[in-house]
Amino acid sequence: MIRSRMAPNLKFNQVVDRLNAAGADILNLAFGESRLPLMESLAELLSAAAYQTTYGPVAGTQAVRDAAAGYFGRRRLPTDPERVIVAPGSKPLLMAVQHAVPGDCILPQPCWNSYAPQARLAGKTPISVPITRRYGGVPDPLALRAAIRTARARGLDPRLMILTVPDTPTGTVASPETVRAVCAIAEDEDLIVVSDEIYRDIIHDPGTELLSPAEIVPHRTVVTTGLSKSLALGGWRIGAARFPVGERGDRIQAGVMAVASEVWSTLAHPMQEAADYAFGDPPDVRQRLEASARLHGAVARAMHSVMVGAGALCRPPTGAFYVYPDFEPMRTPLAALGVTDSRSLQRFLFDEYDIAVFSGHLLGDDPDALRFRAATSMLYGPTVEDQTAALASADPVNLPHIRKTMTRVETALAHLRSRCLEGAV
Amino acid sequence: MIRSRMAPNLKFNQVVDRLNAAGADILNLAFGESRLPLMESLAELLSAAAYQTTYGPVAGTQAVRDAAAGYFGRRRLPTDPERVIVAPGSKPLLMAVQHAVPGDCILPQPCWNSYAPQARLAGKTPISVPITRRYGGVPDPLALRAAIRTARARGLDPRLMILTVPDTPTGTVASPETVRAVCAIAEDEDLIVVSDEIYRDIIHDPGTELLSPAEIVPHRTVVTTGLSKSLALGGWRIGAARFPVGERGDRIQAGVMAVASEVWSTLAHPMQEAADYAFGDPPDVRQRLEASARLHGAVARAMHSVMVGAGALCRPPTGAFYVYPDFEPMRTPLAALGVTDSRSLQRFLFDEYDIAVFSGHLLGDDPDALRFRAATSMLYGPTVEDQTAALASADPVNLPHIRKTMTRVETALAHLRSRCLEGAV
Repeated sequence: MIRSRMAPNLKFNQVVDRLNAAGADILNLAFGESRLPLMESLAELLSAAAYQTTYGPVAGTQAVRDAAAGYFGRRRLPTDPERVIVAPGSKPLLMAVQHAVPGDCILPQPCWNSYAPQARLAGKTPISVPITRRYGGVPDPLALRAAIRTARARGLDPRLMILTVPDTPTGTVASPETVRAVCAIAEDEDLIVVSDEIYRDIIHDPGTELLSPAEIVPHRTVVTTGLSKSLALGGWRIGAARFPVGERGDRIQAGVMAVASEVWSTLAHPMQEAADYAFGDPPDVRQRLEASARLHGAVARAMHSVMVGAGALCRPPTGAFYVYPDFEPMRTPLAALGVTDSRSLQRFLFDEYDIAVFSGHLLGDDPDALRFRAATSMLYGPTVEDQTAALASADPVNLPHIRKTMTRVETALAHLRSRCLEGAV
Repeated sequence: MIRSRMAPNLKFNQVVDRLNAAGADILNLAFGESRLPLMESLAELLSAAAYQTTYGPVAGTQAVRDAAAGYFGRRRLPTDPERVIVAPGSKPLLMAVQHAVPGDCILPQPCWNSYAPQARLAGKTPISVPITRRYGGVPDPLALRAAIRTARARGLDPRLMILTVPDTPTGTVASPETVRAVCAIAEDEDLIVVSDEIYRDIIHDPGTELLSPAEIVPHRTVVTTGLSKSLALGGWRIGAARFPVGERGDRIQAGVMAVASEVWSTLAHPMQEAADYAFGDPPDVRQRLEASARLHGAVARAMHSVMVGAGALCRPPTGAFYVYPDFEPMRTPLAALGVTDSRSLQRFLFDEYDIAVFSGHLLGDDPDALRFRAATSMLYGPTVEDQTAALASADPVNLPHIRKTMTRVETALAHLRSRCLEGAV
């Protein structure tokens, strides 16, 4: 049985879309969608692949598994194609891992909003462990050991841990040291690690080092990825997973294959051909990945400045396309405005400024904290022309349409800040 | 947790494909795939829809929900588009219903091989009830009441029942009287009914009456369908569900939406545009459905004659594209050949005649029974030309390529029969 609530990110996005369609002018920063144009090569491939109407192998065709293995291999994760499964998004793969690994599940707090509901669907209890002050996506190593002990004392059985590198909601890439420390605990405590690397190709500064848990504890790490974020293909639903070599990997992969075969059969065959191409990292895809990462970085950094300028604490974003500000420094004056927690903060920005953000409590964070996620990928404009200009620009933040939206956020938060300061007088 | 076994239909198909690719000549009657050419209009639509790269609403776009509502409406099931959810196949929808409805799950015995594993994934115990002598896809009403009592006495809590109309594996359309009797019990016992109508558009004789459980107990029936079988689009993964009006329907639909949003997000957006067209029943789709149903019927009837001619009992097929022979009359001589149950019968046909069939025990049937499923949809030939000729023919069974395959089965079974008769002397 499941609580009958829709995933709040998808639900909220639908609500905002409906309101805007009805004439509202809500700025939607609540949804983690990359709004960038479809690559021509992928459009042509999907078109040519329409004739693929047979089911084919559950794990994907040999071609797409070869391509995905190459994709991982070029990212320091040498991979046997037999260790790859493609699927309609990485979500069903993450769900299947929850079924395939016994015990309970450790999650960073905050984290992507579907991990915990998936764990519950598989009969697991989610165990949340706070992230570090500098990075999201991984639990604070110091807190992790204690959390495992406490969980066991409560009768729970932590066996699985999900990491997100780079992460949502903080838009940061955990440092190699932090990843190493967390992996050492996974080794000590015999945890299976899922490394959700769906934002892996969105590192703002090519100098930022990303260390995958699969490089440190390869025999116990499942890596998931997909094309929804890096190539702005959310609506195509293409994901992939890479399973560890060895007895643990065999067992988990067999479990995931069983779930795949009973629940979704396979990734739609035409989509497999598009994925085959994209995972091959051909020149146009590489160029797109670089341009996107540059754009996401520039806009996320600008939004970070806006948040800090408005008086919030905020980790500097280094990957993905989010910022996760914390308005704790303004708690007292905000309380005078009726804003006392993440839910009321989200509502206030929505009601007063027509700005939709994603409240931290929906990401498993402390409901009393004054935190929200803003997706900066929603700023690239509504038209293909706007988005193409954003991708091509050396200074996208100063393109008129992006500047205008950024200013809207800045003005709203400056107004909020001035109300706070007045209230504090 | 899940038993780490792949769905046997998909697994077996992969094995046969690999063997044939390596030079074997195995006749594959084990897999329920309709091998017919892609319609031109659908190829064009998918191509034009490539640019749909956004997630969109979880339940599907308004357009595809409108189209699916119209589809159901034209089949005597008037439907509010708000009651429709599309998904990547009907399989994830069936899985989500297992999560959304509490208690345990009643299944016809035999039935499609993924119902029981899905029930188990959701923590349910499957309760199998034998089908009637004439029809598959629905439990024998007489046995059903007793089975519910027995299940309750065992501490189980039957709350959900899956029916398949027309069904796999027997390829029959349950009579209106049988459906009514089963629905009356569902009403008495407060069961939620899932009516899996994925084969609904494959009725061999237009005069055969199909009564949907949703016409009898509309307030407690979820209907699922898809394009995999009727339009031979298995590899496109397009399914839809229709939820009942009222408090029960609200609750189940909310639960399914929750699962959808956490597990698969939505049907790939380009596929929604193809589905929008197909569910609209335009003239070329209607024509294709009629031609397919005629072809499936002609070939299934011919295969039925082959099975009966070989000495098996077999329900005359009236829908879908299967026959489900029972070699019980030959039990004694078959035993002398080492064939004592459905598993050894499947193996014998495979080893001795290079014919792959799908053993009844894999469909939840009594393992000792000498029954298997043969999918007649695999006989239309490997090429688009063969398949197009089959669709166009007034007498497809006598097309050389279909005749040849049918003769191969007939000859093999005649040989088996003669060995049995010799053994019996």
